[in-house]
Amino acid sequence: MSLNILGYAAQSSESALGPHQFVRRDPRADDVVIDIEYCGVCHSDLHQARNDWGGAIYPLVPGHEIIGKVVSVGSGVKKFKAGDRVGVGCMVDSCQHCSSCEAGLEQYCKEGMTPTYNGTDRHDGQLTLGGYSEKIVVSEKFVLRVPEKLDAKAAAPLLCAGITTWSPLRHWNVKPGSKVAVVGLGGLGHMALKLAKGIGADVTLFTRSAGKEQEARRLGADHVVLSTNEQQMADVANHFDLIIDTVPYAHDLDPYTATLNLDGTLVLVGLIGQTDPAPSTASLVMGRRSIAGSLIGGIKETQEMLDFCAEHGIVSDVEIIDIQYINEAYERMLKSDVKYRFVIDMKSLKATA
Amino acid sequence: MSLNILGYAAQSSESALGPHQFVRRDPRADDVVIDIEYCGVCHSDLHQARNDWGGAIYPLVPGHEIIGKVVSVGSGVKKFKAGDRVGVGCMVDSCQHCSSCEAGLEQYCKEGMTPTYNGTDRHDGQLTLGGYSEKIVVSEKFVLRVPEKLDAKAAAPLLCAGITTWSPLRHWNVKPGSKVAVVGLGGLGHMALKLAKGIGADVTLFTRSAGKEQEARRLGADHVVLSTNEQQMADVANHFDLIIDTVPYAHDLDPYTATLNLDGTLVLVGLIGQTDPAPSTASLVMGRRSIAGSLIGGIKETQEMLDFCAEHGIVSDVEIIDIQYINEAYERMLKSDVKYRFVIDMKSLKATA
Repeated sequence: MSLNILGYAAQSSESALGPHQFVRRDPRADDVVIDIEYCGVCHSDLHQARNDWGGAIYPLVPGHEIIGKVVSVGSGVKKFKAGDRVGVGCMVDSCQHCSSCEAGLEQYCKEGMTPTYNGTDRHDGQLTLGGYSEKIVVSEKFVLRVPEKLDAKAAAPLLCAGITTWSPLRHWNVKPGSKVAVVGLGGLGHMALKLAKGIGADVTLFTRSAGKEQEARRLGADHVVLSTNEQQMADVANHFDLIIDTVPYAHDLDPYTATLNLDGTLVLVGLIGQTDPAPSTASLVMGRRSIAGSLIGGIKETQEMLDFCAEHGIVSDVEIIDIQYINEAYERMLKSDVKYRFVIDMKSLKATA
Repeated sequence: MSLNILGYAAQSSESALGPHQFVRRDPRADDVVIDIEYCGVCHSDLHQARNDWGGAIYPLVPGHEIIGKVVSVGSGVKKFKAGDRVGVGCMVDSCQHCSSCEAGLEQYCKEGMTPTYNGTDRHDGQLTLGGYSEKIVVSEKFVLRVPEKLDAKAAAPLLCAGITTWSPLRHWNVKPGSKVAVVGLGGLGHMALKLAKGIGADVTLFTRSAGKEQEARRLGADHVVLSTNEQQMADVANHFDLIIDTVPYAHDLDPYTATLNLDGTLVLVGLIGQTDPAPSTASLVMGRRSIAGSLIGGIKETQEMLDFCAEHGIVSDVEIIDIQYINEAYERMLKSDVKYRFVIDMKSLKATA
């Protein structure tokens, strides 16, 4: 039985998002059919809808911070049953047999993971369509259990913003007392503060705006360093074990790498593109420092992160919107005018139907 | 008793190196007085003599790949006695109490290590003067034991070129079977090949010159990849655990980072300056790859490296020169016309006296 679905789509790189009817695939044996309750709005939704990165296929239905309830499951599904609260993040499939997949790092699948939208299903070749829609059909391997303790609407951004900052915190071995800094206070940055604080790290926010101190402390920062103030920057030279850099546009990395301790790492999670200005290697060589990148997270660690958040009472700070507001929300995102993530209440979609 | 010493010095950034008489300090209780037999010629000798990096203090006596025999020792010296064959590398002191020094990583001393030349002695404030000279006086903590099995003249470059490539191989945990690539086949690059092969890694040389294959294999490369050949580069995509990049001038890192496996690291040991072109972050983010830097090595690991080289019969390929040839040698180094390291036979200095 195919599913006739209502969603919101961009019909071209120039068009605003609007209602769009489409068909979800017949559930396969390993599939979970999910009634979507909330979907977070990620910067990449906007960039892909507008084809800023190239490769957009239209109609394009964005959305990869999905929370919902299981409606039905395929005959082979063991982990989920109807009524379970579940989540879907940025991936819906991968090759399942390469060294990355075997390590539980499906985001680095050697054959390329299947993104939740604007990707190609590995089995039927169909375009994947995302969470700005009534329902989604996803293999159980890529479905997450969302603890009931978590507020569903505020948990949606954990599926992308949360795991994107959690994964490097774990990979670079952040522990209680580790010195962690965060660059950028948006959707990713505010999650980085909360998660690093949750782990017990000593957390610093780098900011260019003097007014953000109180807000940063509320979100988990122990310290706030004004990156435009030379003295404050000098005071944290050679200090941090890990810097999570969430800034999505080119910026000067050198002032931040200088604040890394010996063997420290600055990990980029927001910028995919050319560095500008070009980083200097002096502070890398002189302190055995690294500049690294990290991409979302694997399914296993996403589940760990959700369980950790339930245990520690961590969710995203969200502004709930109706789907009809999405184009205005995109414009506000471009101005960083959101604290800190828009989440679409999918009930609003019914008003369109 | 002060020591009147003959050496070779640059008197200014424009002047050729020539004979220079100076006084070494009275040996302190912890000092070892070393009769210098051989001194390797490092690219940084040339750059500092000509003040290419700024901060040169004249007269400047270069040289930090020093091999010699102990002449006498201070009253507190326990590790060495007259007649021992010893070496001195790039450092002659450090604070000895910071976290880096306590970890045996004096090169990253938080207060700044004391370089073998063009530095300031921490105790008497005197300018340090390097190994292009008859004798040197160094605290025993910074004196290395050079196994008798090693050919003294060919071992001199181990003190800088050797340890600079050994340290990242060890720090990034290269083991038998690890996939290691080396960029650049000069003084550092040829040591990286030999040491990586000695550890048992599967070793690849990246080169832009098709003619270097036989030579690279002789030095330890299992594979040679022509970096100007797109197909050969594509064949090693996602392949290496570690790339040791020894190139001392700005170059494009992106083709190399793309050949790193998941969690692989490209470590810069030759370039201190701006990257150009600016690296793209895409291959860092998409494969959790890192660009790092590494600076020489600590005293403990330098001793380990010397012992390892003695055990595995590894030394540098050298061209022995008289000190009077040093200015011509510098010109040839600038044209990469040396296989692979000039080493000064200090007996030649007596002809000047």
